[in-house]
Amino acid sequence: MAFIVKKKIGGNEYYYLNENKRVDGKVKTKTIAYLGKDKKEAEKKAKDILENRKQSDQKSPKPLDLKEAKPVLKSTEISIEELAVFCKRKGFVYQSGEIYGGLAGFYDYGSLGHQLKKNFENVWRKYFLGLNSNFFEIETSEIMSSNVFVASEHLKNFNDIAAKCKKGHIERVDLLMERYTHKKMDGLSDDEWLNLIKENKAVCSTCKSPIEYVGPINMMFPIQLGVGTATTAYLRPETAQGPYVNFKAEFEVARNKLPLGLALIGRAYRNELSPRNLLLRQRAFTQAELQIFFNPAKIEEHEDFEDVKDYELIVMQSNSRDDGVIKTSCNELAKRIPKFYVYYMARVQQFYLDVLKLEEEKFRFFELNDKEKAFYNKYHFDIEVDLPNLGWTELGGVHYRTDHDLKGHQEISKQNLSVMDEETKERFIPHVVELSFGVDRNFQTLLTFAYFYDKERDNIVLRLNPKLSPVKAAILPIVKKDEFEKISRNIFDTLNKEWKVVQDKSGSIGRRYARNDEVGTPFCITIDGESLKKKDVTIRDRDTKKQTRVKISLLKDILRKLIEETLDFDEI
Amino acid sequence: MAFIVKKKIGGNEYYYLNENKRVDGKVKTKTIAYLGKDKKEAEKKAKDILENRKQSDQKSPKPLDLKEAKPVLKSTEISIEELAVFCKRKGFVYQSGEIYGGLAGFYDYGSLGHQLKKNFENVWRKYFLGLNSNFFEIETSEIMSSNVFVASEHLKNFNDIAAKCKKGHIERVDLLMERYTHKKMDGLSDDEWLNLIKENKAVCSTCKSPIEYVGPINMMFPIQLGVGTATTAYLRPETAQGPYVNFKAEFEVARNKLPLGLALIGRAYRNELSPRNLLLRQRAFTQAELQIFFNPAKIEEHEDFEDVKDYELIVMQSNSRDDGVIKTSCNELAKRIPKFYVYYMARVQQFYLDVLKLEEEKFRFFELNDKEKAFYNKYHFDIEVDLPNLGWTELGGVHYRTDHDLKGHQEISKQNLSVMDEETKERFIPHVVELSFGVDRNFQTLLTFAYFYDKERDNIVLRLNPKLSPVKAAILPIVKKDEFEKISRNIFDTLNKEWKVVQDKSGSIGRRYARNDEVGTPFCITIDGESLKKKDVTIRDRDTKKQTRVKISLLKDILRKLIEETLDFDEI
Repeated sequence: MAFIVKKKIGGNEYYYLNENKRVDGKVKTKTIAYLGKDKKEAEKKAKDILENRKQSDQKSPKPLDLKEAKPVLKSTEISIEELAVFCKRKGFVYQSGEIYGGLAGFYDYGSLGHQLKKNFENVWRKYFLGLNSNFFEIETSEIMSSNVFVASEHLKNFNDIAAKCKKGHIERVDLLMERYTHKKMDGLSDDEWLNLIKENKAVCSTCKSPIEYVGPINMMFPIQLGVGTATTAYLRPETAQGPYVNFKAEFEVARNKLPLGLALIGRAYRNELSPRNLLLRQRAFTQAELQIFFNPAKIEEHEDFEDVKDYELIVMQSNSRDDGVIKTSCNELAKRIPKFYVYYMARVQQFYLDVLKLEEEKFRFFELNDKEKAFYNKYHFDIEVDLPNLGWTELGGVHYRTDHDLKGHQEISKQNLSVMDEETKERFIPHVVELSFGVDRNFQTLLTFAYFYDKERDNIVLRLNPKLSPVKAAILPIVKKDEFEKISRNIFDTLNKEWKVVQDKSGSIGRRYARNDEVGTPFCITIDGESLKKKDVTIRDRDTKKQTRVKISLLKDILRKLIEETLDFDEI
Repeated sequence: MAFIVKKKIGGNEYYYLNENKRVDGKVKTKTIAYLGKDKKEAEKKAKDILENRKQSDQKSPKPLDLKEAKPVLKSTEISIEELAVFCKRKGFVYQSGEIYGGLAGFYDYGSLGHQLKKNFENVWRKYFLGLNSNFFEIETSEIMSSNVFVASEHLKNFNDIAAKCKKGHIERVDLLMERYTHKKMDGLSDDEWLNLIKENKAVCSTCKSPIEYVGPINMMFPIQLGVGTATTAYLRPETAQGPYVNFKAEFEVARNKLPLGLALIGRAYRNELSPRNLLLRQRAFTQAELQIFFNPAKIEEHEDFEDVKDYELIVMQSNSRDDGVIKTSCNELAKRIPKFYVYYMARVQQFYLDVLKLEEEKFRFFELNDKEKAFYNKYHFDIEVDLPNLGWTELGGVHYRTDHDLKGHQEISKQNLSVMDEETKERFIPHVVELSFGVDRNFQTLLTFAYFYDKERDNIVLRLNPKLSPVKAAILPIVKKDEFEKISRNIFDTLNKEWKVVQDKSGSIGRRYARNDEVGTPFCITIDGESLKKKDVTIRDRDTKKQTRVKISLLKDILRKLIEETLDFDEI
């Protein structure tokens, strides 16, 4: 039994949540939590804590039990549930706080998952920061003052439209209605939603009682800073506001050059009503975003446009969706969309097709119409991929945010955020093209596409590009003798300085290959009976199972070239 | 004027905060924020927003004005204020939301700062994860359920002791009393604090009115998840609980081997009453922590202890502080502190002295006594450095947390968190040694020690170790002609694939050297009149100003060796 106690110290009252427990036959009192000095607040806090405990009591043990989970499908058409099982079994990703029944909308990355995520971030960083020597990465606070979101209009506009039933259950109205209409629903007014609910006789998904009303709910998490005279701040719902608020400072450090790119890879937070689909809709997620500030008078040019002018973009246009996806050259699209924007669409598509090696037919830009696009955008193309288990899915977007944000910050902060064109001496507020990527969504996409059941091996092979593989090489000593283990250790130490590598010493060699294939390790290095005499090892290629012998002294160099794809395995 | 309006849509009421503004002579109404459906809540929200705006109106324009800031001291004894000016001027770090007057306790990293911070993290990662092939890095949610903090006892014990005055101002009582007693104060009971206040006639630091009471205030930030039936979760106050809650899952992935190390580099959050000293006491900060899980029956051994047994530790012992710092071999210290723990103290000290190249007399372990140490620790040594502007300062710690956390999680989650020793077949809950580092604190330390005013150059030289320098090389074409700029661009493209490098084309060569010295760039590469014919460039060493010519084809290789310190500049 838990109960609240009041302590008087120095004339003041303090509230604590205590509990009696039987330990070794004796009843002992234990303090669970300090509840503050205010009686009402203390009662609320205690209720919260006990409520939470009760929930977790009811739910636990609920962690995903691998022994009871369905075996993973022996096909590449992996379902979301199967992917979740695979991710947990291999330590890629699992629900946050699983031992407490899991916290809805939050996921943790295990060691392999963290490594894959970091590799994606580094590939992204190298590619997008490499586009211009005036692009930089910064790191800004996740907690920002409410002024920031008055200026950006997130406090006003960043809402989910919720449906509430008679019994108080709240859910997203668009998701609710999609289940009735089997269409993507977006951009309706509250009244239009209510009519739609009536027409379809839609009821609460939880308790089937009638929907009572529909209205916006702000998706930001408020935070109280300080005590007593606390001020309200918010966890950022997107990373973009950091670069905007810091634009002027970074512009000065970059010696007043435009275009200026400010990249940020970091966490953002949204109070999602319906988290779902593994990592696709979480309450905390990582974004990789690049904000490109430029002179709006120069929106119809880009110094490198020539390089992409004939490149063909894959686009689902907003005004001709029935015609499906079209292919259009940058030159062609630039007739109706500004060149500066089109240039970056080309670079984004090249990132997916040339760097991440996605198949062309799995990729498209999806152009949003005026009703659908985010409130801050003038042009808005989603980056979409066709996932075998979810269909076309948004991984990010290219957004022309105009001067919406900087103008807002100038107005509310009363700081002059305009800059001067060094040639024309004209002053203006820069406009922004934003390249936005959901890192977790890209992570899930990479895993889904890499996942492959190899019939011949009767084993899963995770066919990740070596650049992205969490572990670059597994070192497998075949002979269990000190000399061989010493070679193994030396190779491990040498390679581990540069990449994540592992030593794998137990089980048959076939079992060890299978284990490493399954987590996408591109190269296995075996140390066999010959290795001592010849000072060489065997390298095995994950996808082809081909093997070849290599001198130990050349190993690091060859591995580097294989990972960077400047050397083909057959050429070794 | 701002005012609240109520809208009726579909029979429901919605509250908005609107404002009238004169635009081009006409009064226009603009919506500032959506306030929800509850009248009382709407009024509170509106008050918060307007209060915030007022505060920022009063404060703004308050951003650190570089033109008015005191010039930076021409000495190495840089003060905190001067360091703040330097950091802002060069874009290393600045207060978060400066255009809004700054958010107390939050800092943003500019591009150079981010790069330095990331380099520190990578050096840390490489060193500590390299200690054992069973050490891994993971990434877990910053928001965790209240159960986690009931189990870890943070809800009960993680409090600041606050002093509140008659007028309601709240401050940390230990900091308040340090100003009276000129001693580090810690571990007193509420009554003892009150007596001390009386004896010293201490008054409120803000308004000088009498202190009314003293008591604990929990330092965690609560978050409401969902709406309607919201549950309370918390922003994590340390990164450690992530690895603890996920221990069992990762242990299985690591195939049940102990010791198991789980590292995590990430943000933690504390509602500090008195943020101060630039990055040293923030409300959001980055921790790099390694949790080492081991069998408590084996605490008196470590497989690599032989390697460090004669290594001398620099320690301020808790029971002989008057004697000052002593040097004691690991063997000697292991007579009273467990070997498993002492081994990691040695590795931590080696990290500071050998990897970060800190001077020996600036480093010590500070042993905490029973009153001072954190509530979860059995042994607790702080890692301290002697900063020229703040004296001995805690950068992290080595903590023996026993099974405090895992036992707590087992009890509250009702999951069995014990494991089995494969040899003895005994079951036990692993114990934990935690290596904990404040990344921002280390960042500030590196900057402070690297900062050097060179009289001869009349310029600041940031003498960072090349491994840590944000920018590894600056490429400076001297001749303003296309051929030379082309060489410059080619070199930039080659080097930029591997490191952060810059091209610097404007100003005299002396000015360019100075600019790059100031931000710690270790190598300047000049392209001069000879470069075209001879296909070579000049490399200049930041600290010695020595120069030498190098073939362009060899440049990348030589630079790599210089950065890794496997080649001395004189040996090129």
